[in-house]
Amino acid sequence: MSPSDRIPPGVWNAIDYERLAPQAMDAGRHAYVAGGCGWDATVAANRAAFAGWAVLPRLLRDVRAGHTRLQLAGMDLPHPLLLAPVAHQRLAHPDAEIATARAAQATGSCLVASTLSSCTLEDIAAASGPARWFQLYLQPEREHSLDLLRRAEAAGYRAIVLTLDASIQLASRGALQAGFAMPADCVSANLARYPQPAPAQPAAGESRIFQGAMRHAPRWDDLRWLLASTRLPVWIKGVLHPEDARELQAAGAAGLIVSNHGGRSLDGAPASLRMLPALRTAVGAGYPLLLDGGVRSGQDAFKALALGADAVLVGRLQVYALAVAGALGVAHMLQMLVEELHACMAQAGCARLSDITHDTLTPSC
Amino acid sequence: MSPSDRIPPGVWNAIDYERLAPQAMDAGRHAYVAGGCGWDATVAANRAAFAGWAVLPRLLRDVRAGHTRLQLAGMDLPHPLLLAPVAHQRLAHPDAEIATARAAQATGSCLVASTLSSCTLEDIAAASGPARWFQLYLQPEREHSLDLLRRAEAAGYRAIVLTLDASIQLASRGALQAGFAMPADCVSANLARYPQPAPAQPAAGESRIFQGAMRHAPRWDDLRWLLASTRLPVWIKGVLHPEDARELQAAGAAGLIVSNHGGRSLDGAPASLRMLPALRTAVGAGYPLLLDGGVRSGQDAFKALALGADAVLVGRLQVYALAVAGALGVAHMLQMLVEELHACMAQAGCARLSDITHDTLTPSC
Amino acid sequence: MSPSDRIPPGVWNAIDYERLAPQAMDAGRHAYVAGGCGWDATVAANRAAFAGWAVLPRLLRDVRAGHTRLQLAGMDLPHPLLLAPVAHQRLAHPDAEIATARAAQATGSCLVASTLSSCTLEDIAAASGPARWFQLYLQPEREHSLDLLRRAEAAGYRAIVLTLDASIQLASRGALQAGFAMPADCVSANLARYPQPAPAQPAAGESRIFQGAMRHAPRWDDLRWLLASTRLPVWIKGVLHPEDARELQAAGAAGLIVSNHGGRSLDGAPASLRMLPALRTAVGAGYPLLLDGGVRSGQDAFKALALGADAVLVGRLQVYALAVAGALGVAHMLQMLVEELHACMAQAGCARLSDITHDTLTPSC
Amino acid sequence: MSPSDRIPPGVWNAIDYERLAPQAMDAGRHAYVAGGCGWDATVAANRAAFAGWAVLPRLLRDVRAGHTRLQLAGMDLPHPLLLAPVAHQRLAHPDAEIATARAAQATGSCLVASTLSSCTLEDIAAASGPARWFQLYLQPEREHSLDLLRRAEAAGYRAIVLTLDASIQLASRGALQAGFAMPADCVSANLARYPQPAPAQPAAGESRIFQGAMRHAPRWDDLRWLLASTRLPVWIKGVLHPEDARELQAAGAAGLIVSNHGGRSLDGAPASLRMLPALRTAVGAGYPLLLDGGVRSGQDAFKALALGADAVLVGRLQVYALAVAGALGVAHMLQMLVEELHACMAQAGCARLSDITHDTLTPSC
Repeated sequence: MSPSDRIPPGVWNAIDYERLAPQAMDAGRHAYVAGGCGWDATVAANRAAFAGWAVLPRLLRDVRAGHTRLQLAGMDLPHPLLLAPVAHQRLAHPDAEIATARAAQATGSCLVASTLSSCTLEDIAAASGPARWFQLYLQPEREHSLDLLRRAEAAGYRAIVLTLDASIQLASRGALQAGFAMPADCVSANLARYPQPAPAQPAAGESRIFQGAMRHAPRWDDLRWLLASTRLPVWIKGVLHPEDARELQAAGAAGLIVSNHGGRSLDGAPASLRMLPALRTAVGAGYPLLLDGGVRSGQDAFKALALGADAVLVGRLQVYALAVAGALGVAHMLQMLVEELHACMAQAGCARLSDITHDTLTPSC
Repeated sequence: MSPSDRIPPGVWNAIDYERLAPQAMDAGRHAYVAGGCGWDATVAANRAAFAGWAVLPRLLRDVRAGHTRLQLAGMDLPHPLLLAPVAHQRLAHPDAEIATARAAQATGSCLVASTLSSCTLEDIAAASGPARWFQLYLQPEREHSLDLLRRAEAAGYRAIVLTLDASIQLASRGALQAGFAMPADCVSANLARYPQPAPAQPAAGESRIFQGAMRHAPRWDDLRWLLASTRLPVWIKGVLHPEDARELQAAGAAGLIVSNHGGRSLDGAPASLRMLPALRTAVGAGYPLLLDGGVRSGQDAFKALALGADAVLVGRLQVYALAVAGALGVAHMLQMLVEELHACMAQAGCARLSDITHDTLTPSC
Repeated sequence: MSPSDRIPPGVWNAIDYERLAPQAMDAGRHAYVAGGCGWDATVAANRAAFAGWAVLPRLLRDVRAGHTRLQLAGMDLPHPLLLAPVAHQRLAHPDAEIATARAAQATGSCLVASTLSSCTLEDIAAASGPARWFQLYLQPEREHSLDLLRRAEAAGYRAIVLTLDASIQLASRGALQAGFAMPADCVSANLARYPQPAPAQPAAGESRIFQGAMRHAPRWDDLRWLLASTRLPVWIKGVLHPEDARELQAAGAAGLIVSNHGGRSLDGAPASLRMLPALRTAVGAGYPLLLDGGVRSGQDAFKALALGADAVLVGRLQVYALAVAGALGVAHMLQMLVEELHACMAQAGCARLSDITHDTLTPSC
Repeated sequence: MSPSDRIPPGVWNAIDYERLAPQAMDAGRHAYVAGGCGWDATVAANRAAFAGWAVLPRLLRDVRAGHTRLQLAGMDLPHPLLLAPVAHQRLAHPDAEIATARAAQATGSCLVASTLSSCTLEDIAAASGPARWFQLYLQPEREHSLDLLRRAEAAGYRAIVLTLDASIQLASRGALQAGFAMPADCVSANLARYPQPAPAQPAAGESRIFQGAMRHAPRWDDLRWLLASTRLPVWIKGVLHPEDARELQAAGAAGLIVSNHGGRSLDGAPASLRMLPALRTAVGAGYPLLLDGGVRSGQDAFKALALGADAVLVGRLQVYALAVAGALGVAHMLQMLVEELHACMAQAGCARLSDITHDTLTPSC
């Protein structure tokens, strides 16, 4: 833990870490983290979607035995707030993902480590608690993907999160205008051992997208190969279309993460919260469904659960808290989110996560 | 009455007291009164809800015999504008609730004195007219609650208003940023005699909310105890959910106050005016239903009555008027609200409060 | 015509007179004219209502024989744009209503002279064309109203417009803040001969509205008396409620003017354009229905006709043009409105006013 | 190509040419190009309409063989982005339409040359590729229109685009305020040989619109004459009403361009994208339908295709790119639009334009 890792004054809510982050990060790095892609329309949509719902307080409910414990993919978790897979955390703090892992362990939170982490999945595993998943980007070479799988299994990760919506990630104009460039010391430690093939060069007249970026995009046979290659449950991240949800469920995915990659994939994709009810309807009541995208408070988490999620993942707020106060900041941010969720549940008369049903909400206007 | 208690120039409408209050109050105190909790989203929603409706003028109606008299809980009132229970009025004026009580008496308005008043309920009763209710926060010890009940009965209060939505009240970020702290001289005079138990300290791993703040939150048996403990009619304040309304009505509540505590309980709760029609439908036509939250004009009161309320309570405007011009200010504010209601009724062709039906309104866009 | 009456540069559209008016009027007078009452919410709503509709262009329609001539209350008018009754025009120009009358005559427009005009109805009649109506405010004494009727009949006015929505007109806060007071030279010339009774003083405890301002408010027997007292067709101005429209039609009104008095009566009344379709449905297809409130362009007039009006009245724009360039300004403003209407009709494929049906519009978003 | 024709730094998206154009154009010329007519309400509506839709990403689709090739009016085109007919391109660049034609050829794009081009249709044809259409404004004299037809046929244009919504084009207030006047060197080279008749002067009392501007407006017999006068397919540009679409289809139009002339004809007309679905329903699935109005990105083009267009035309962005970097700029802009379309298609799981169906979109809020 860095000497600077202290909770600064004025952190009254978890979202305050977003307000304080610009003071703790170089402008270019902050623009890269805060930005989505293009004009950040989907980043804004993710936030606006939460404001579209109001929470209905309930009276005289006995919530003294209230708690937020849940069972998720065989794990007993104290609360439904997972740390989303976020790449390159050295952008935010010298200790990078090790600090985040420590915070996860300290708060019993489930950590999802990123393929593109600054620290190796092994070091992250060593610093985190038992509740850890590994987010996988399929590599151009299947043997590299297989190696990552085996390393994750060996390091005790309890599930694989396969991200499928990142084949194309156009830069955020904010980051471009801030002149951001990935610092030399921010390498993907997990991939250092795998020789990266030269990017696919489309022939003359061919598309840099279809015959370029999409050449190595994951396809159904890749998913089937992955499912057959590991005993770990495989979750799919990046789902927004009800048909995709049904097909992935039928293919054997352990669960889905409703997500638009924090607005970093397709600027103009709908808010994840907006698509959540349709996806819940598509996969039915019992199937595990998580959400990320715009979660900045316990009340946001409450709304996502009310609209059909079993739990939510926190992305940017994790990086902001890491930048502001390292592991302590991330732990404090998580603890504030949990307490905000408790307050919202208590005022809505919910003692259990299962009490958080759709009728706890009403459109806010 | 303080020498400074004069109506300042430029008070053309009751809401002008809100505009003038910052000049009459210390910034921190004003931020505490003006703020709700968190980002004041529900404070704003309360106001916006009124702007969503337009009043339909009517022509050639004979309103010369018009008036706003009503029967409410056995009281003959000249108008449907009650002074909401507001705590700690010494924040606004040295005379605190005594000045407000005098204004209530001068205008025949029903005053609802707060458990957390700066002056004792006895002194307030002595300064107010016959139309006075006592707002009760159940105390951690039932004997203290019982003692408050007996004192209220003895002091001639004609109803008890049990507030049920204040178990958790997170600070308004505006007040936090203004560095507000409750001044030493602002004590809850009614509770001075009751030894306050140390706040519930949850054990390690327990929730500061569920096993802390909610440990003494009122539950159904508390309500049943209260109803059985006093001959006074008991109203419930803080109702927003139709099911709660039906259950409280069935339990024997004398009436309900549709309220989100002026946005001071759950930031993100819906506007009270938005939930009013559903609650009126839930309890049926004859059952007494009041509203507070965002009332700043006689036309606001008109809209609340049209959407199902029998009367409204005025909260913040009461404190602002008290701060600007003491008892005279509160009386003047009430008189302006009443006259604004008369003007709106007259232009809408309503000679009686009973004429103010839903079809006097139309959505404003 | 004053020497200053020249069309200034930069008047490309009729609404430019609104933009230029502040330079041609004293700030208080402009605030009085521009203001509605209270916060001018209905003034803004009137304008916003027009922006809610888009006009659908049509192709290949033969409009070479297009025109905007219409029959209205026995008058052959060149276009459906009437000059609304506007009081105290000396506020805008030394020539006051005489200049407006000249402009009406020059453009063949129907002028509606106000009871509260700065010039007498006789002088206005002398300066205007044959298409002139007289707007009547019933006076506290019926004999004064009768005298006004007889004078209007004698001066060749062809219809009476009875304004029923002005019993209560609270000041516009803009005018109050600008410190506006009616100048001494701005007297209602028509009423000089009638001793004005002292304003009704309500007894103690009585309402300044119900037993004060509304004591002399027009009632049904006043309307029946008026209808029986003149051979002139009597139009009713200030109608917004479908039931009022049906009742007035049944009572024998010659036609109705859908209006909220330019937002000067009840701040919070709906936009007149918003209520127009419901009123057209209430009175049926053949019954004469006009509209005022927010008309600033020929396209606004087109939209009002498409939504059910037979013609529209122009209020504030008339005063602004008068202030900027006297009679010439008013005539130029009217001519621009007419040409804007022609252009909109031509592009919507409408050669006749009767072609302007509801399906020429579509909601703009 | 001018020495200055270089792609400036900071052009990350096609729309950046709109941002950079003010630095490359005289203020008056830019105001003329950027402006629509009146208050540019429809210009804004065109843009807002695209923001009303979100694109639904799809997962695991195999788009490696993706492309945007299409057949349009007998032409094999590499992508569905046509260069809209834009008049007076010498306003933007000394090489005017010749530069644009070169860019079209370089990118295989279909160019639609304007009747009012600064260069002759013959010179434009010589500089462009085979995919070129000629936009025709019917001339007051039919022989001039016929001559233009024959010249277009002779110069190898492959279709005629008859613009029908430009009989009335009121100035944009922005251009008026910027004091724009058409420079002397910006003449319509195609029309130099035809003596232009004096503008129709309506008689006294006649309308400058109906009996003036609309005297030579195209009517059905003009269309029938045109269809019978050329073997080239005739498209109609400026269609917004479903009935017009059906009638034009029945009359033999080869296809329609849903358009409000970039907001330059009727300020207050609906956004073209808003009317597209109704027009597609009106003409049925197989009939060629294009759209212009507000297209600033590949994703905009994607949305138009999803809502029923077969291809889109790019207007202002063409002129901005021409002004900033001449032919190179236009080519670069087109290539960026195409690549943005590829990216959007790939992320939405669309390998073919035919995959871009309505259910790839969802309302964005």
